[in-house]
Amino acid sequence: MIKKLLIANRGEIAVRIIRACKEMNIETVAVYSEADKEALHVQLADEAYCIGPTASKDSYLNTANVVSVAKLTDCDAIHPGYGFLAENADFAELCRDCNIIFVGPSPEAISKMGTKDVARETMKMAGVPIVPGSQGIIETEDEALQLAEEIGFPVIIKATAGGGGKGIRVAKNKEELVKGINITQQEALTAFGNSGVYIEKYIEDFRHVEIQVMADNHGNVIHLGERDCSIQRRLQKLLEETPSPVIDSEMREQMGAAAVKAAKAVNYTGAGTIEFIYDYQNRNFYFMEMNTRIQVEHTITEMVTGVDLIKEQIQVAAGEILSIKQEEVTFKGWSIECRINAENPEKNFMPSAGKIDMYLPPGGFGIRVDSGAYPGYTIPPYYDSMIAKLISYGETREEAIARMKRALEEFVIEGVKTTIPFHLNLLENEAFITGNFNTKFLEIHDVMNQK
Amino acid sequence: MIKKLLIANRGEIAVRIIRACKEMNIETVAVYSEADKEALHVQLADEAYCIGPTASKDSYLNTANVVSVAKLTDCDAIHPGYGFLAENADFAELCRDCNIIFVGPSPEAISKMGTKDVARETMKMAGVPIVPGSQGIIETEDEALQLAEEIGFPVIIKATAGGGGKGIRVAKNKEELVKGINITQQEALTAFGNSGVYIEKYIEDFRHVEIQVMADNHGNVIHLGERDCSIQRRLQKLLEETPSPVIDSEMREQMGAAAVKAAKAVNYTGAGTIEFIYDYQNRNFYFMEMNTRIQVEHTITEMVTGVDLIKEQIQVAAGEILSIKQEEVTFKGWSIECRINAENPEKNFMPSAGKIDMYLPPGGFGIRVDSGAYPGYTIPPYYDSMIAKLISYGETREEAIARMKRALEEFVIEGVKTTIPFHLNLLENEAFITGNFNTKFLEIHDVMNQK
Repeated sequence: MIKKLLIANRGEIAVRIIRACKEMNIETVAVYSEADKEALHVQLADEAYCIGPTASKDSYLNTANVVSVAKLTDCDAIHPGYGFLAENADFAELCRDCNIIFVGPSPEAISKMGTKDVARETMKMAGVPIVPGSQGIIETEDEALQLAEEIGFPVIIKATAGGGGKGIRVAKNKEELVKGINITQQEALTAFGNSGVYIEKYIEDFRHVEIQVMADNHGNVIHLGERDCSIQRRLQKLLEETPSPVIDSEMREQMGAAAVKAAKAVNYTGAGTIEFIYDYQNRNFYFMEMNTRIQVEHTITEMVTGVDLIKEQIQVAAGEILSIKQEEVTFKGWSIECRINAENPEKNFMPSAGKIDMYLPPGGFGIRVDSGAYPGYTIPPYYDSMIAKLISYGETREEAIARMKRALEEFVIEGVKTTIPFHLNLLENEAFITGNFNTKFLEIHDVMNQK
Repeated sequence: MIKKLLIANRGEIAVRIIRACKEMNIETVAVYSEADKEALHVQLADEAYCIGPTASKDSYLNTANVVSVAKLTDCDAIHPGYGFLAENADFAELCRDCNIIFVGPSPEAISKMGTKDVARETMKMAGVPIVPGSQGIIETEDEALQLAEEIGFPVIIKATAGGGGKGIRVAKNKEELVKGINITQQEALTAFGNSGVYIEKYIEDFRHVEIQVMADNHGNVIHLGERDCSIQRRLQKLLEETPSPVIDSEMREQMGAAAVKAAKAVNYTGAGTIEFIYDYQNRNFYFMEMNTRIQVEHTITEMVTGVDLIKEQIQVAAGEILSIKQEEVTFKGWSIECRINAENPEKNFMPSAGKIDMYLPPGGFGIRVDSGAYPGYTIPPYYDSMIAKLISYGETREEAIARMKRALEEFVIEGVKTTIPFHLNLLENEAFITGNFNTKFLEIHDVMNQK
């Protein structure tokens, strides 16, 4: 068993992991940058160590310092959370070399899924549907033009080393394709040190639907249903829900089976998410990418399945068998997560760091808050802007929405601007209420200025 | 449907009811005493009116003022919460006379269950097990002595108008019985204006197990399982859990069926609780009393059944059919509630009213907080001492306990003494952990001084 665990992260996810450890009787070691001395995760952990200056690269991304603290404090394991070192194969390997359990998949699985064209080919071979497109890297313009003729315009050009919305470009015709390939290659070389690009058919009208998977070291892989993350602004998720209003149990089983196949294809272990492009008009889905870590929105899956995903991660990392079999996974009710960010939704979501003068999270039945904030906490401007994840649960989507609305209205955060007004407007939006929308929702609907 | 509802209460239960109303799109009217100007329920309601000075009898118990505000603000309904006017049959009748929906049972049902010897006889006739004892009021000493011979000592003498631990006395022999009857009669006459007493066999080794029932105006009555409230200090509940560690599904069905019978015997409507003496050694249970209102600990039933009891109360009060049938009621997981009171557990639970300087409720998966507190709130010394109800949910009892512990440790309440240290010790107590205890737990275990 794991007796002591280092959390190589900050903010709400560090708090989330510390909570799980306390409930499992595992000692916790927090690390923090100089800017995070007063952070909640530092206060809640059993021990806490400063690992460097404010800049992430000097602290939270400083692998040597993180591993040194783990070694010096006799930690058996490191949980990377999400972001920072979570999908860094070298770090996972360093942990292995240092005989520290990395709470996550193997470096090999991270690498395979992190290289987009390799992931694409691996999925294809495993029988997971992928978007029609090139086989591996595009070598010549002619190859690209010929392929685009076959699959039809518009196509999307993607850097194999890209991610998070970077190194992506749409081409509507031959001219844009030739130009786009050149620009994307140059950009990718500069940004990622790898100029490889590939092309895919561009699907415009889709929902972002992802499947949570969980795998142990004994060959067991299960899925825990879907999350619909179609409400995005510039590829940043703002609200997630499960189940998806457009997924029925038959489709859930199909996507779930594909996700399990995907995980098995890379000998995956731990918690992971297979993101799919869901062409809901034609009931087709395509592999988008796999996130080889816990995700921000894992909370809503916990609400409807009852499975504590962080505990499960830690248990399987310690070599235990999955605590639950596929046929035991049940889904009950509906859950929504709103990301409450320190941003001003009236000014184009401009960051709004600063001191939280007054803070009172909402409570009551069906409300969960995951946060690293407290009254008097100063949000540093250097990291991500999330203050809290507000999660609602209801027997139905209608109830989950109603509960979220009353919780958003109750939530007191004074001193900084937040996305609460955005979410309140979103939940009043007719298209959102009916569930009839795609990933372009926020391009189509000016939520902050709706009547 | 109900469009506007007045909450004739304060504190966390007023907040709880306002939350349910907001989720149901019902306008809310709060009332408050002069001492409660700054209370959270006043801030959260759509409208709020002062109904009198600090003393409860002049404000929260002032039926004329409460009903006047309801009438003046066009409320369709009044929710009494628990305590104050919740079990006042005259108030329920006044509401009926004023054409206001009282969210609760009929005045007749309240009266029947509020008069202890009548309730006892009604239950006996309905076939609900009662503790062996007198039929109606004891008229003469001889009658009492003869009966005590039959049922065996010790016996308990109870004032028919008593309640909440008042007007109760145990007699171990004939002498104590004769003396006890006289004293209890005199006390009861002074305290309740009714000298009637009756006697019952005194059961010493029992668990307090209660069944939640819910009934509509169309003859449907269901039960929602049990709550174990055996952890009491001077008949005040401190921690409740569901399921009970000593109730199996067979016993749950038996007690549930008895509770439904009890409710039907008085044409009950709304939410109610049948409290039972559970003689767990012999698997016998006996009717103790019925609480004809929502209870503090209703929350844990909500956690394991998913049913929102306050919404259900309001819906059936509006004439709707129960939203759920008996066969649809399912129980999942385990839930515990700790009452966080402004009391000093190291000084015999002495009240500790005052200003809360710093307040941060715990959060995360499986944690629910129902509270009327906030940072800077001053707890008035005039009403009950509860600051918050901390509720945990887990797949198992072990998980619910572990989660409760970490949440208690996280809970920041500065400025007043609280029962948090008591609960932390309680959850470490071996007898509590094994589940092997009865209502004398806190007489036997000095929780604050355990090793």
